[in-house]
Amino acid sequence: MTFKKADQQMYKIDITPVSSEMKEALQHKIDTKTKPLGALGQLEMLALKLGMIQNSLNPILNNPTVVVFAGDHGSAAAGISPYPQEVTFQMVMNFLAEGAAINVFARQHGLAIKIVDAGVNYDFHEQKSLIHAKIAKGTRNYLDQPAMTRQQCEEALEKGSEIVRTLYQEGCNTIGFGEMGIGNTASASLLMHCFCQLPLEVCVGRGAGMDDAGLAKKRRLLEQALQANSVDETPLSILSTFGGFEIAMMCGAFLQAAALKMVILVDGFITTAALLTASKINTGVLKYCIFSHVSDESGHRQLLNYLQAEPLLNLGMRLGEGTGAALAFPLLQSAVNFLEEMASFESAGVSGKDA
Amino acid sequence: MTFKKADQQMYKIDITPVSSEMKEALQHKIDTKTKPLGALGQLEMLALKLGMIQNSLNPILNNPTVVVFAGDHGSAAAGISPYPQEVTFQMVMNFLAEGAAINVFARQHGLAIKIVDAGVNYDFHEQKSLIHAKIAKGTRNYLDQPAMTRQQCEEALEKGSEIVRTLYQEGCNTIGFGEMGIGNTASASLLMHCFCQLPLEVCVGRGAGMDDAGLAKKRRLLEQALQANSVDETPLSILSTFGGFEIAMMCGAFLQAAALKMVILVDGFITTAALLTASKINTGVLKYCIFSHVSDESGHRQLLNYLQAEPLLNLGMRLGEGTGAALAFPLLQSAVNFLEEMASFESAGVSGKDA
Repeated sequence: MTFKKADQQMYKIDITPVSSEMKEALQHKIDTKTKPLGALGQLEMLALKLGMIQNSLNPILNNPTVVVFAGDHGSAAAGISPYPQEVTFQMVMNFLAEGAAINVFARQHGLAIKIVDAGVNYDFHEQKSLIHAKIAKGTRNYLDQPAMTRQQCEEALEKGSEIVRTLYQEGCNTIGFGEMGIGNTASASLLMHCFCQLPLEVCVGRGAGMDDAGLAKKRRLLEQALQANSVDETPLSILSTFGGFEIAMMCGAFLQAAALKMVILVDGFITTAALLTASKINTGVLKYCIFSHVSDESGHRQLLNYLQAEPLLNLGMRLGEGTGAALAFPLLQSAVNFLEEMASFESAGVSGKDA
Repeated sequence: MTFKKADQQMYKIDITPVSSEMKEALQHKIDTKTKPLGALGQLEMLALKLGMIQNSLNPILNNPTVVVFAGDHGSAAAGISPYPQEVTFQMVMNFLAEGAAINVFARQHGLAIKIVDAGVNYDFHEQKSLIHAKIAKGTRNYLDQPAMTRQQCEEALEKGSEIVRTLYQEGCNTIGFGEMGIGNTASASLLMHCFCQLPLEVCVGRGAGMDDAGLAKKRRLLEQALQANSVDETPLSILSTFGGFEIAMMCGAFLQAAALKMVILVDGFITTAALLTASKINTGVLKYCIFSHVSDESGHRQLLNYLQAEPLLNLGMRLGEGTGAALAFPLLQSAVNFLEEMASFESAGVSGKDA
């Protein structure tokens, strides 16, 4: 797949709907396991979904991988984050040195990890887990002009899809996305506001830890950003105006992963905003997604509601990096395992409900 | 420790309060990790709690074990469960054959598993993971008379504590409890009603899957049970009248585990009712407990609220067996791991918040 111009404003990607062919047989398999009907709750829905995505009674999670997209934001200089911009590259260095939270959780659960330089303001050396995909050394400041050119935006989408294709070809069928970028909750808020048509104040939160004054300033700046730019209603216009390179690249990655029928783990607020954007390009992407958690970032719950998503975890986290996706991964494995390994009433000789 | 008669009605066990000695140092360690303050949400509280329970900056989960207590209930014959009584022993056989949900999840997370025959109406052969601790082949029917004698109740408490002592001596410092027993949600509801002084209808739910008519019948029967028995207000009087052997044994196990300063994972409704009972004997037990999940059994949320517990997971499960505890275990491991393995701002050379 590549992104095709359908018209001046809209890119298309083909996503096959999830098959319902196995639905009944999967439900029967779930229902005959040695447990009361429905007693495994969301794990049962998860098993059904994984089986349907893979069109199999025996879904399997191969080479599960977390891809962390990192990028810098021109708007960071304006004070929309309590952290200085250099924290983006410093945290990428931390990922590469395997010292960040996502490294710890990925290691714990046997997840491979890839760090993508989507547009960090730093020159990284070659390193095993680093993927060079830099569009530019950070976006422009959307308080002055669109964050990226249309061409940069398309390039980011294409790079994201290319990264996923490569992982898929290497045998990965389960992928989680995460991100790092000082200022990127602000971008995500703007995307949410534009796509969901929700008031800005619903969409803007404390990000990495704003105090009240910081939050008020962030809201003011984002109001200014909306006034400073004219966007048409198309996804790419909105994405290129307010997005970040890591968000645009994730957007392309989401679409490609769904086109390849991969199981996709969605992380927190920013990742979900990238998915929201992807869903405006092709709503079919949503059916391949598992929502790992609802974060503590104030807009996330409403964004999930908008997408009719039921997150697995609610741990009050707000770290990004793909940490929610990594922590939710063992639940996917549990769903696969109970489907594969649990005895049935018949095989175990256990009586059913009284008639 | 053994259970000592403090007076005619009350047994005592010494539980040392969780130490606050390390609290500040633990919080500092958590706060200097490369993440915004508080960004790991409940995992941070978990890390703090585990560190305090073990009085260490480097808590470690040794030989984590799930103990599943099984017992039969005389009341099952009266139709308080949609499943026939023999499902208890059949499910124990399923546990021993490693085909039940708890086996799958324990295997996934490297948890040892022990099945305790606390009072199942069946004669089991010797088997590796089975612990023989049968008090009798099921309790009596509390619709006619107290479910157990005072002596049986004391014996069950003592057995539960003995089982935990043995596991502790074998090197286990982290323990989860689960149960199996057709009819035991009804017992748990009666215990909750008596101890929490909440209306019976708040405490009674659909158990393994009652329909509306079944639920109405269950409520009627439990009203009758309350009228048929006179209990004094002491924990052991209530426990011996309405408890099950598996519940009483778990109660003793909870108290012993806390006395040994073990990390305790609480499972669903019935396990929490056993803990509630233990907390009425010694409230100190609660500080050693991690609440793994809120189940779909209707009284569980309110029981957790009563205990001021914040469960980690909410997956709409209602299976028991310790499955919630097993699924929550990796979150405990994540808390331990981030505390141990994550870089600090200083070690990683990452800038902090702007002043």
